[in-house]
Amino acid sequence: MSWTRKHLLDIESLSPEEIITVLDTASGFKDVGKRDIKKVPALRGKTVINLFVEPSTRTRISFELAAQRLSADVINFSAEASSLRKGETLKDTTRNLQALKADMFIIRHSAAGAPHFLTRFLDAHVINAGDGAHEHPTQALLDTFTIREKKGRLKGLNVTILGDVLFSRVARSNIWALTKMGAKVTLCGPVTLVPKIFEKLGCRVTHRIEEAIEDADVINLLRIQHERQRKTFFPSLNEYTALFGLSKERLARCKSDVLIMHPGPINRGVEIDSEVADCDHSVILEQVTNGLAIRMAVLFLVNGTRVPIEASA
Amino acid sequence: MSWTRKHLLDIESLSPEEIITVLDTASGFKDVGKRDIKKVPALRGKTVINLFVEPSTRTRISFELAAQRLSADVINFSAEASSLRKGETLKDTTRNLQALKADMFIIRHSAAGAPHFLTRFLDAHVINAGDGAHEHPTQALLDTFTIREKKGRLKGLNVTILGDVLFSRVARSNIWALTKMGAKVTLCGPVTLVPKIFEKLGCRVTHRIEEAIEDADVINLLRIQHERQRKTFFPSLNEYTALFGLSKERLARCKSDVLIMHPGPINRGVEIDSEVADCDHSVILEQVTNGLAIRMAVLFLVNGTRVPIEASA
Amino acid sequence: MSWTRKHLLDIESLSPEEIITVLDTASGFKDVGKRDIKKVPALRGKTVINLFVEPSTRTRISFELAAQRLSADVINFSAEASSLRKGETLKDTTRNLQALKADMFIIRHSAAGAPHFLTRFLDAHVINAGDGAHEHPTQALLDTFTIREKKGRLKGLNVTILGDVLFSRVARSNIWALTKMGAKVTLCGPVTLVPKIFEKLGCRVTHRIEEAIEDADVINLLRIQHERQRKTFFPSLNEYTALFGLSKERLARCKSDVLIMHPGPINRGVEIDSEVADCDHSVILEQVTNGLAIRMAVLFLVNGTRVPIEASA
Repeated sequence: MSWTRKHLLDIESLSPEEIITVLDTASGFKDVGKRDIKKVPALRGKTVINLFVEPSTRTRISFELAAQRLSADVINFSAEASSLRKGETLKDTTRNLQALKADMFIIRHSAAGAPHFLTRFLDAHVINAGDGAHEHPTQALLDTFTIREKKGRLKGLNVTILGDVLFSRVARSNIWALTKMGAKVTLCGPVTLVPKIFEKLGCRVTHRIEEAIEDADVINLLRIQHERQRKTFFPSLNEYTALFGLSKERLARCKSDVLIMHPGPINRGVEIDSEVADCDHSVILEQVTNGLAIRMAVLFLVNGTRVPIEASA
Repeated sequence: MSWTRKHLLDIESLSPEEIITVLDTASGFKDVGKRDIKKVPALRGKTVINLFVEPSTRTRISFELAAQRLSADVINFSAEASSLRKGETLKDTTRNLQALKADMFIIRHSAAGAPHFLTRFLDAHVINAGDGAHEHPTQALLDTFTIREKKGRLKGLNVTILGDVLFSRVARSNIWALTKMGAKVTLCGPVTLVPKIFEKLGCRVTHRIEEAIEDADVINLLRIQHERQRKTFFPSLNEYTALFGLSKERLARCKSDVLIMHPGPINRGVEIDSEVADCDHSVILEQVTNGLAIRMAVLFLVNGTRVPIEASA
Repeated sequence: MSWTRKHLLDIESLSPEEIITVLDTASGFKDVGKRDIKKVPALRGKTVINLFVEPSTRTRISFELAAQRLSADVINFSAEASSLRKGETLKDTTRNLQALKADMFIIRHSAAGAPHFLTRFLDAHVINAGDGAHEHPTQALLDTFTIREKKGRLKGLNVTILGDVLFSRVARSNIWALTKMGAKVTLCGPVTLVPKIFEKLGCRVTHRIEEAIEDADVINLLRIQHERQRKTFFPSLNEYTALFGLSKERLARCKSDVLIMHPGPINRGVEIDSEVADCDHSVILEQVTNGLAIRMAVLFLVNGTRVPIEASA
């Protein structure tokens, strides 16, 4: 194991060895989820703050369960009913929480860099649960874990990321993780959402879906956030679906063992056909299962605990 | 014990033996509530999702405490801040939660049949905490438990259910439970809220309160939901109270050992006089206590655990 | 130890010996916060209801963590989504919660006297977490703890409370605690917010900040609640800051070992300069740490538990 980091802030700064350490640790924790008693005492007596300044039920619950299964105490802190509303700064809010002897902060924030900012003045461990359009490292780790588990390797695979790349932290973190691990990444979507400049990150950029999917081993779809639809970026949802939706017809032209991924929640009939979401190629729900294992691994590793992963007494 | 069901979806499909099994199991758990350490390890390491798509503080807390006292991990999932808001289907939301290795779903939903729907695709246990105007099985079980405890039997008792029967899942579940156990059920309330068709369920229907209460061993009052008052069903709250409210005067004409019940929250001065709610006949708060025991019993039984009910180490 | 009370409702009725008992007990619990496993089994199997009818994230979390670290089960009950909204009385709501075998109620309420009211009909322990403008006893205890820890004593110290005294429960509880412990209390702020009548509580009242701070050993600043600004009490925030804000210049004229305190959340640039908040005199974050220890001590003492404070097995 080669893990010495106090925080998990991004994928960009991780080495391939560190990524592998997280994936290998997560394998062990995935087995815990299959036990009758799905709990280990690794973080017993530790306090984890789930600080979701930007709302997210599913990621919050995944982290909450991860902490519970490591036997930590968890405090959910959402922005809505909080002192942040009364005008307190993020710095003051988090220093106050740390003064309660919190050991770890899991933070989601609409501002890129918010988790890094916390590390400047907090002693606690900080885990980035998504910061603006910057990074969402645990999502990329769980995606990478899922691909490795299904394909047996990462090196040399063709992975296509399809959709709203420009505003997607999931895309950015995946690009970092996959290229570090030797996969070949293709980005595809409307010109307005997938600018050529992403080639500088070592990706292929195309705006023709046929080109993007024909030799893909993995297609990772991004959610079209139609509830905050960006009118200026594409004319209509229908047009998006027609040009970039993953339909049955398009799936039929993919490799026979292509993996379909999506960080969720999916929009059935928008970026993905309902039948495609539920077909054998889809590993969307396994991503969720693996996300829990990845988050347990991350909490465990940053804590630096030496306790072996064993069943609770 | 004769319990082999994976879910608790309704009372309608239960046998009298199954109802008795729940009541007997709940007796044991009621004793746990009297201990100094009110916890047993029966569901240790299990994850229970409290999925309240329709809000309810008191039922949610009752289930939350029931799960805690069985040592389960509980996740509260309310509709407000969730992916359901982003347009995700209930099926996708619950399958995602199950992918986190949730063991049980406790669901309250405004749509009748929602819990049954979940069982079509979830492997987890499903417990109905109220679905539309259909059923609220744990409420009926706790009511039945309370009557049996106070009266020593159910068979042959006259039980009157008074109020908004038409829209009440509490009424429907109670009708099923009580008639199965051999009690005689009378329904009473305004013609618009207590239609004659309910006689098909084996009940007596009357619209004169004097007739409904004079020989009742138990009067179970339903809440008039005046915060969403149904203008078309009765002219005014005052008129409802005059015609169907349980006043001191009316109580004086009841049997001397009549039991007054109410699922709560009560509207003092509307369906029940304040003094009646607090008099010796009232077992409203004991219903709450018994509800916790019933919910512990239900979680325990559907889990199929073989662990004896004993104090945690 | 001289603690026989079932509740903690106010500071006014406490004896100096009782205050000392809380502070001494809190010292032990502060050490628990430094351990690797920050948990003791003192309240295992007890149910604590965090009943925040008036919202407060930080105090709620402090109590929630205090209960968790004593191994209690905690239910958070906020007014927003509750039966209180449906018109249920506070009495009925809390009696229902108690029927679930809740052992302790921690209540914050906008009405002065709400915690005392609960003790009239509840068997459970009641802890006042702030009632209207009346009292906030755990805040005064943590303030007193912090002063005693830093100064080694309370007797004879000059403590200045600065700001919106009129509407402050923090001020009232501090006045009671400090005068009982032999400190000399000065109150300062605008005439409208610091009326002369407070002299009857044994305090000095002045409206000139220079006079209030020059010989102060401790300055306890109160938050200006500008989000609900009281237009009739002072002309503008700027004027308040000019006349009563604790600036660097004013701090320079204080005693060289003055302690700067604030119950938080602070308004940087309003009642306190940003640099003053972060300077060596400031113990604002230590107050937060001590608050957790005080709350653990209070929960422990009212519970009357005889279990020694030792690490969980």
